[in-house]
Amino acid sequence: MTSQQNTLLIDCEDAKGLIHKITDVIYQHELNIVLNREFVEHESKHFFMRTVIEGDFDQTELVEKLRSALPENANIRLSSHQNKDVVIMATKEHHVLGDLLIRNEFDENRANIQAVISNHEDLRQFVERFDIPFYVIPHEGKERSAHEKEILALLANFSPDYIFLAKYMRIFSKEFVEVFKHKLINIHHSFLPAFVGARPYQQAFERGVKIIGATAHYVTDDLDEGPIIYQSTTRVDHRFDANEMAQAGREIESKVMAEATKLVLDDKVFIHGNKTVILD
Amino acid sequence: MTSQQNTLLIDCEDAKGLIHKITDVIYQHELNIVLNREFVEHESKHFFMRTVIEGDFDQTELVEKLRSALPENANIRLSSHQNKDVVIMATKEHHVLGDLLIRNEFDENRANIQAVISNHEDLRQFVERFDIPFYVIPHEGKERSAHEKEILALLANFSPDYIFLAKYMRIFSKEFVEVFKHKLINIHHSFLPAFVGARPYQQAFERGVKIIGATAHYVTDDLDEGPIIYQSTTRVDHRFDANEMAQAGREIESKVMAEATKLVLDDKVFIHGNKTVILD
Amino acid sequence: MTSQQNTLLIDCEDAKGLIHKITDVIYQHELNIVLNREFVEHESKHFFMRTVIEGDFDQTELVEKLRSALPENANIRLSSHQNKDVVIMATKEHHVLGDLLIRNEFDENRANIQAVISNHEDLRQFVERFDIPFYVIPHEGKERSAHEKEILALLANFSPDYIFLAKYMRIFSKEFVEVFKHKLINIHHSFLPAFVGARPYQQAFERGVKIIGATAHYVTDDLDEGPIIYQSTTRVDHRFDANEMAQAGREIESKVMAEATKLVLDDKVFIHGNKTVILD
Amino acid sequence: MTSQQNTLLIDCEDAKGLIHKITDVIYQHELNIVLNREFVEHESKHFFMRTVIEGDFDQTELVEKLRSALPENANIRLSSHQNKDVVIMATKEHHVLGDLLIRNEFDENRANIQAVISNHEDLRQFVERFDIPFYVIPHEGKERSAHEKEILALLANFSPDYIFLAKYMRIFSKEFVEVFKHKLINIHHSFLPAFVGARPYQQAFERGVKIIGATAHYVTDDLDEGPIIYQSTTRVDHRFDANEMAQAGREIESKVMAEATKLVLDDKVFIHGNKTVILD
Repeated sequence: MTSQQNTLLIDCEDAKGLIHKITDVIYQHELNIVLNREFVEHESKHFFMRTVIEGDFDQTELVEKLRSALPENANIRLSSHQNKDVVIMATKEHHVLGDLLIRNEFDENRANIQAVISNHEDLRQFVERFDIPFYVIPHEGKERSAHEKEILALLANFSPDYIFLAKYMRIFSKEFVEVFKHKLINIHHSFLPAFVGARPYQQAFERGVKIIGATAHYVTDDLDEGPIIYQSTTRVDHRFDANEMAQAGREIESKVMAEATKLVLDDKVFIHGNKTVILD
Repeated sequence: MTSQQNTLLIDCEDAKGLIHKITDVIYQHELNIVLNREFVEHESKHFFMRTVIEGDFDQTELVEKLRSALPENANIRLSSHQNKDVVIMATKEHHVLGDLLIRNEFDENRANIQAVISNHEDLRQFVERFDIPFYVIPHEGKERSAHEKEILALLANFSPDYIFLAKYMRIFSKEFVEVFKHKLINIHHSFLPAFVGARPYQQAFERGVKIIGATAHYVTDDLDEGPIIYQSTTRVDHRFDANEMAQAGREIESKVMAEATKLVLDDKVFIHGNKTVILD
Repeated sequence: MTSQQNTLLIDCEDAKGLIHKITDVIYQHELNIVLNREFVEHESKHFFMRTVIEGDFDQTELVEKLRSALPENANIRLSSHQNKDVVIMATKEHHVLGDLLIRNEFDENRANIQAVISNHEDLRQFVERFDIPFYVIPHEGKERSAHEKEILALLANFSPDYIFLAKYMRIFSKEFVEVFKHKLINIHHSFLPAFVGARPYQQAFERGVKIIGATAHYVTDDLDEGPIIYQSTTRVDHRFDANEMAQAGREIESKVMAEATKLVLDDKVFIHGNKTVILD
Repeated sequence: MTSQQNTLLIDCEDAKGLIHKITDVIYQHELNIVLNREFVEHESKHFFMRTVIEGDFDQTELVEKLRSALPENANIRLSSHQNKDVVIMATKEHHVLGDLLIRNEFDENRANIQAVISNHEDLRQFVERFDIPFYVIPHEGKERSAHEKEILALLANFSPDYIFLAKYMRIFSKEFVEVFKHKLINIHHSFLPAFVGARPYQQAFERGVKIIGATAHYVTDDLDEGPIIYQSTTRVDHRFDANEMAQAGREIESKVMAEATKLVLDDKVFIHGNKTVILD
């Protein structure tokens, strides 16, 4: 038996009466609906609904009843409001990581950070200040597949609900991404206009941009092209050299990752093709 | 028979099964739910739901069925997506007014601006450029009650759904406000920290504020204290004198009024005591 | 003799003592410096200074004295605070145009809008409401060079200081751009990430972006790639279809063009290679 | 002899030729001016100038020469770009503090945090994670003067350049403030409209505000009323209860304090009466 609040996320092909059928099941279990938000995407005729329910009930039974009331291929997620298990991967930068560690220290996110994994030693002292296990798996002199195998072996000890890539500067193979489908969340810089190639902040400096942005997204095998969760921008001007633009970029990346991971941990995000639908 | 999209806004004391009961009625009428958003205010145990429905139905019958399914004192609004009738009142400033007139010219809002009423001649040429009737009812040398009587007589020709106060610089009597309860929307400047008394921008200048804001709200008899619909802020600095702060204030007032009136015209706003609940 | 305030913009190769030499000339003319801002770009060793001066003086003499005090290739602009002459070019959209016309009507910008030129009739009624001459030069059935020749002939009647492209949807030839070098200001949509090709808002919709932006820039022969003056962004989400994203784009374009043209008209913008330096 | 960059801040009664006289002294010392920004406040006829200079020079001599070139009561500050000594005072909240400690850990601010002083034990573990000395001086059962005497004795060991009040929830006496004049920087919540009295977030919740702000300011004996350094705001809505509004308030307070302290540590802030002039 579960008590307190739970979040129910349902998405499926749209049809008449879906809300009615779902709330019928909820009503039969004598549960309160604290918050409900529904959305139908016009182009794909797809139905999304997020419902926060309150009361005691049998989880398996509720999901079964919902399943028999809904179309066959409906996605049904029932999530208690307990902390999710999270592993963070980072390389050398502390900005995004630091923000996540402090939120963890004071239990401000629905996350339990199990470990930080890096391919470098640089962040050890900082991470260990927070009593979080820090593991280094160097990539140098290894094939990507061999390196990923070591990471997979380590991650197997934790079986995290999510892996947050806090400026982890290695590209994963298609196979690795497949193992952690919908569990890998990445942050990267973004520009108006966009730049291709190396040293993006040098390019932004040379182009004289007035705005720098960041995008948090799920990782798919199409690098930096998975479903976008959250974006934001910040102002720069002629006084910023390339290094200062990069610094402004790090600050906005940290803020964007904080917002995006909060949305994910609070069970507000649906993935639909290459897009997200966020119901809060 | 009504076709196309309609918006249903329901609020009442919270109880189990409300969504289920409402969607039951909708399902019986074979209507599609395009968008649904529900919220329960914890402190007051009050239920709010906004539903966009699609399909042909008999309006009176639907509302009657809903009424018999819901608690006795439930508020039920059914709104087609046709333009609302709006009268604008202004004094001498064109900023907020100009934005509303241009949106009207290109039919960008769900509003049909019937007339502009002022207590001064200043804006006549500008308003008449848009082929909108412009009326002046001077207040000078009149008791407030006499002045309001004239305004009431003129407004009676239009019976507007809403009256937008676009920098109308007169205070209405309690009686006037009561006649147009929940129909009067006002915009005014706002500061951090706030200033009491005259010449607020001179005070803001003297205080060296770094931010200037605006608040759009429903008018109640407690001046500038009705339910807040929308707020926003903009940056100023030491280079702004009192006049330039006032100019920045006018620009943000114009933007805030545009957002607030759009929320109201799109049937997204519930009034609950002295607060609003906005479901979009 | 000139009285009141003037703005002096100087840029040249950096050297020791430049401010000293410039202020020496100003001091000799017994002028007040109301505001002064100087910046040296580190990479290019280039000096920029904007000075607002107050008092009566002989313009030619002051510039001559400055020229003899400064390196040979120094750029010296002396601008009184009178309105600049501006022609607006547009196609069918009113958003950016409408904002500029209202500012002109109430003399809120340092601009005197002489005419609006379009390649379509659509905006005639709207523009003429403001008593601004409206000219149509259709492009259909004409070579680009022939079309531009007609535009050039018309513009010759106005010799504008600036041409604001308020959603003018034609691409200019290299020759046309050269004639109006540093006088053509354009606005266009911008995305994080960027999209190449047609129907950008459809692409933004399909990609599920959470932010839409706009960039105002000087036009160079590299289309949409001239020096950036101002940028800004606005939030969108899953509820926006491609049309609504385009609408949000129009609103932010209008705001960005208002800011950018104000910076230019207030003599705050230096062009340096493919970048701007903005001293305000 | 000093090398590298230094910042010169001068303010005094306005007069003709001030920039010329100042840059004359700089030119005589063969120093480069990297950045210069000057502002004259119209109402008070007061001159402000901030100059970043590069090169080797004798500090005492430069300041002496400037003093003899300028009006008698001119304020002249010459600041090297070395880290300032800072003591942080806090009570129980970690948000503002945590952000400052992480910036200190990675040397991202021009600050050397010497110690954290609190009136409670709560933050000891967190502060000590960063190897920063943590002192508790309880206030309970003490007169304010006795409590402040203990704090003064402890601060005497550090003689900090600045004291950052990171949610230190005690009010200082006029005498204490006088000792650290222009050195005490505080952060507090701010609202549109403002609320007087206790439990401001409960009031903000009851009023249904849509925006919550924060203000960082120098402390004067007029509580929460000293010169404002930086302000910012964040959006809330009907879904936020009083606790969630307070949480949003803590996040924006943390960001505002980060910006304000950076401005102060980078020598960009002038205090002028009850206002600041910020030249960057």
